[in-house]
Amino acid sequence: MPDMDNLFEKLDAELAPGQEKRLNIDDISLKGEVLPGEPVDFSHGDVDAFEPVPGSLESFSHGFSEVGATQAYTVYRGREDILQDVAAKLADFASTSIDPENELIITPGTQGALFLAAGAMISRGDKVAIVEPDYYANRKLVHFFQGELYPVGLDYLNRAGGAGINLHELEAGFKEGVSTFIFSNPNNPSGVVYSREEIIEIGKLVKEYDVKVIVDELYSRQVFDERPFTHLSSLDAVPEENIITIIGPSKTESLSGFRLGVAYGSKGTIDRMEQLQAIVSLRAAGYNQIVLKNWFNEPENWMRDRISAHQDIRDTLLQMFRKAGFEVRTPEAGSYIFPRIKDLSISCDDFVKVLKKQANVTVTPGTQFGPNFTDCVRLNFSQDKEKAVDAAERIIKVASYYKKGN
Amino acid sequence: MPDMDNLFEKLDAELAPGQEKRLNIDDISLKGEVLPGEPVDFSHGDVDAFEPVPGSLESFSHGFSEVGATQAYTVYRGREDILQDVAAKLADFASTSIDPENELIITPGTQGALFLAAGAMISRGDKVAIVEPDYYANRKLVHFFQGELYPVGLDYLNRAGGAGINLHELEAGFKEGVSTFIFSNPNNPSGVVYSREEIIEIGKLVKEYDVKVIVDELYSRQVFDERPFTHLSSLDAVPEENIITIIGPSKTESLSGFRLGVAYGSKGTIDRMEQLQAIVSLRAAGYNQIVLKNWFNEPENWMRDRISAHQDIRDTLLQMFRKAGFEVRTPEAGSYIFPRIKDLSISCDDFVKVLKKQANVTVTPGTQFGPNFTDCVRLNFSQDKEKAVDAAERIIKVASYYKKGN
Repeated sequence: MPDMDNLFEKLDAELAPGQEKRLNIDDISLKGEVLPGEPVDFSHGDVDAFEPVPGSLESFSHGFSEVGATQAYTVYRGREDILQDVAAKLADFASTSIDPENELIITPGTQGALFLAAGAMISRGDKVAIVEPDYYANRKLVHFFQGELYPVGLDYLNRAGGAGINLHELEAGFKEGVSTFIFSNPNNPSGVVYSREEIIEIGKLVKEYDVKVIVDELYSRQVFDERPFTHLSSLDAVPEENIITIIGPSKTESLSGFRLGVAYGSKGTIDRMEQLQAIVSLRAAGYNQIVLKNWFNEPENWMRDRISAHQDIRDTLLQMFRKAGFEVRTPEAGSYIFPRIKDLSISCDDFVKVLKKQANVTVTPGTQFGPNFTDCVRLNFSQDKEKAVDAAERIIKVASYYKKGN
Repeated sequence: MPDMDNLFEKLDAELAPGQEKRLNIDDISLKGEVLPGEPVDFSHGDVDAFEPVPGSLESFSHGFSEVGATQAYTVYRGREDILQDVAAKLADFASTSIDPENELIITPGTQGALFLAAGAMISRGDKVAIVEPDYYANRKLVHFFQGELYPVGLDYLNRAGGAGINLHELEAGFKEGVSTFIFSNPNNPSGVVYSREEIIEIGKLVKEYDVKVIVDELYSRQVFDERPFTHLSSLDAVPEENIITIIGPSKTESLSGFRLGVAYGSKGTIDRMEQLQAIVSLRAAGYNQIVLKNWFNEPENWMRDRISAHQDIRDTLLQMFRKAGFEVRTPEAGSYIFPRIKDLSISCDDFVKVLKKQANVTVTPGTQFGPNFTDCVRLNFSQDKEKAVDAAERIIKVASYYKKGN
């Protein structure tokens, strides 16, 4: 049992995004005044402010009422006609080819896809490279499957023209026997997009050292300033059998309440993911799967308008935080900013609790994305703009109460 | 990697219920004539024949349109007001007490609950008792979490007045250090209900040897002939910290397409299950959770009528199979029958493929429920009665073509 206690300590979800309602903040003592205001939850996007893709509920109802039994009980990887539709749309989007029968699986959210892909690739003692900072669950998945973490730095604050991955560290890891590499592009939490050169170089290393890769492209549809985006799966040089790409409609498309994600790539890995799904949750909810038909089928200009509305909120918040002395990179994609609050006298874990108690604002502590990000917080800015601006002002004020020396 | 290959061999889902659409039957050669007829899939219930609980789609729509963002993003264990509602209803049903804040979690189907409970309890090398026959995923879960199987016999064919669990074997296992015991009640696939005496005895052993138990009561609402049913969690003598009970609305209530299940019991285990859910799939789909409000809230007589309609189909099929010489126990609950087809010249795995190719009928092979059930098949009789009777006739005919000596 000590092994198990140790594992669950590493899986601790107390400060994970979405769990703040269960957070105990009774014992936190405050400095400065309590700041009233409308509650804002920056731990995830607000699907009331940015509504789901039009027609989603209608598709669901159609699945329930008209399609019926065959929609309720699909094979574990998903219903055949939906796989065909999604494969065609994703192949077009990512400039690659996807065999719907063998190279694609529908999962309960992209979290489900990540879990299954990690479970299909990692076994006890395997070395797994991850990026720091990166999505908090990546390192937890490595712990769960008893792999060994090999962290690779991302110099996101200082490197222009790329994400800033340390390719020397990555190659050193591959040389030392890393068998799997997991990373998100665009990066969560920093919002940086990997440059074409970086992706090509990663592809070369993957091929040379025969490493398996899970690339999480959840935010790859919401790219600002028409910046070019390179899908690892589009590179001919990288063996298809080595790559699993993950994507879903939970973020930009605001369909998170349906829990839908997909993974595509290596046939062998997709087969194993389906075998795992059989014991994990059988399938993504049958009626929900049909909502994927609306994905990549949004009304004209819907995505363009959504991106520009997000860009506007992003720019407003960046300006506010920079004026207050926070260090923050301009995200090139997605809905996250990851400001560093300099000279804070308390840890970001405590700052998160203080913010919730004192200002009714929820953010995610930087430590969820890597142990060194003790002075950072992550905000999902897919929010009602007015409320978000108001809450950002409260964050800045509260931060001033907890500056070193105050 | 040989370890991993070995694991995935044990997880093989080729013949798992629901996967038959992907089954390769091209190479199977046939004896006797091909029997035309409407396709019937006995691997699961037909939710077109027995429709979902009234009001389910309306609840879902309400969650999507009216509740919105807070329904899409619930805490991982589920939305607070739904947990409260479900805890009250289940406590009443199972004559126990459930603290909604600490002792209950909503999961993606009962499969999700089983996976999380097993993951919270079993670690590498642990001895885990399971029953034979029992739900096919139980043994796969033990393999996945690297536990050691300790099978306990169920003499379901010959023991009247109880399920027929071999309590001596169970105690011997507990003496040898079994740390977790997983079983379904009513039993899947045989449909037997454990007697009060059996449940009390299991409770005593659990307490004496301090074993953790997962009891899967998925079918406990569909009990025939008003037979009394004893919930393990209702027994005061058994420490609450040792038990997790699993139940959900996927079967009798035909809500499988929503993927909803729950687990209740031990606070410590529920906490760990939520930590696992955070990396497995985050939560049961938010909008879907609200459909649990319709559960245990069915219109008057709805459940009574559903049970009697199933009892009628059960009795008709039992009579047909017995007349044909199949050995079969009368199920006391649930929608499964598990006939033994005597003197079959081929394995039940091949018989399943033959049935599909020759008679357009899908059943699940007995070997999914234990390695010794090579001459049994499982049928879910929650079907349109006329089609089911017609398909049962085809099963009997095909079986006659493959009798030993023919």
